[in-house]
Parts: sequence; structure tokens; C-alpha cells
Amino acid sequence: MSYSLILLAHGSSDPAWRAPFERFHEALATRMQTSLKLAYMELSEPSLESSVAELTSAGIRRIEILPLFFAAGRHLRKDVPAQVEALRANHPDTELTLLPPVGEHPAFIEALAAVVAEQAGEALPT
Amino acid sequence: MSYSLILLAHGSSDPAWRAPFERFHEALATRMQTSLKLAYMELSEPSLESSVAELTSAGIRRIEILPLFFAAGRHLRKDVPAQVEALRANHPDTELTLLPPVGEHPAFIEALAAVVAEQAGEALPT
Repeated sequence: MSYSLILLAHGSSDPAWRAPFERFHEALATRMQTSLKLAYMELSEPSLESSVAELTSAGIRRIEILPLFFAAGRHLRKDVPAQVEALRANHPDTELTLLPPVGEHPAFIEALAAVVAEQAGEALPT
Repeated sequence: MSYSLILLAHGSSDPAWRAPFERFHEALATRMQTSLKLAYMELSEPSLESSVAELTSAGIRRIEILPLFFAAGRHLRKDVPAQVEALRANHPDTELTLLPPVGEHPAFIEALAAVVAEQAGEALPT
């Protein structure tokens, strides 16, 4: 089944905030086989809604949404699930899955720990 | 010179959002020699201001602030630098340094790429 992975960032009215996400997405998209999209929850385009609409129009029938968030607060526990629920109603032929945020991934947490320790001039015990 | 590293998160009125930051800080503090604090820019306690006051009272004279942010938008380009400038005026004997956000660190970016690829069921070319 045709598949795409959406990286979901918060969004900001500040283009300087969005730039690193766009660079990250572009660089990673060239390294990966999988169809990879970048979308924003609010304040920025492309929105989650327009991205899902575009993908389903292109024939994608399975979409996973990976939030580029450190933690799941109100946005990821309430706002985004409501957005996804509405998208499921609008795109009944497409399977939409909202994943836990990257911040909950053990590899992400360990990399963050290594960056913090390096900043402090320490090597972390393995 | 006595040194402390402050991990600066955004802050949220939602305790569920703060919990992973607190777990991360606690787990990492036990693995590191360096004095490690967690503070919030807004909406949560301890604030950056109260954390710096506490550290300087304890005799710390060099503090680095590492933002746990994916990207530098208005908060990190304007709000936090203004907070740090005010803190420097209030604590003239302490050297305060605001670091770039972890999201700009190459090791962080590479770890994020690996998490994304793993989610898509791919191995990234090295």
C-alpha cells in the first residue's frame, strides 16, 4: 500500500524558526526512499490538512504522522488527535496513524544526553 | 570556576508536557559530574530567573544555558536573550552564556534522522 511519512512540527510565524526544519526535511528526503513530507500543526504552511489532502490525491493510502516534539502536552494529546480524527472523516480511504513524538524515542533521548554531556565537557558512561 | 549547565525548556501549563523533561533531567543528572539544572523559559517553574538566582547564591560563577529547542525562533532570538541580559545585570559576578539550541547540533540532527528512518523501516546510508 502506498505510504508516506509526515514529519509534524509545531509551526511558527517566524520564518527563522521554520528554516532548520525545512533544511532537515530536504536533506533527509534525499537520503531516504520513503515519501517524506514536512507539515505544521499551526501557524505555518503546509498545514497537516493540506499535506494529507495532497498525499491522498496522489494516491497515498497509508500515512504515518511523526511529531517533531520533545514531549506530548496539550497539542499532542488533544489538538492533533482532533485534527487527525477530522482528517480520517474527510479521507476515509486512507489509513492515518499518529505516532508518539520523537522526544519519547530512546535513541533520541540518548543522543540528547550525549549532546548535553559534550556541552559540559564530559563523556557519558555507556 | 564553579560551573553549572542549565537545560532550558519552553515550559507549559500542562504537567504531562513537563514530565519527560523532568525524567530526562533527573536521569541525566545522576550520570553526570557537572551540576545540571532544568529550567523553563515561561509558564512553568523553576523559571530561568529563579534557577540562576539559586545557582549564584550557591556560589556558582559560570553558567551555560542550553536550550532544549529544535530551532531558534522569536523565543531564542529575542525573548531569552532579553532574559539573559537582565540576569547579567542582576548577577554581575556570574558569567552567563546562552548556547545555540540542541536542534542545531549535528549529533542531534543525525540522531533525529536515524529515528525518522527507523520509523519508515529504512536504514540510512552512512
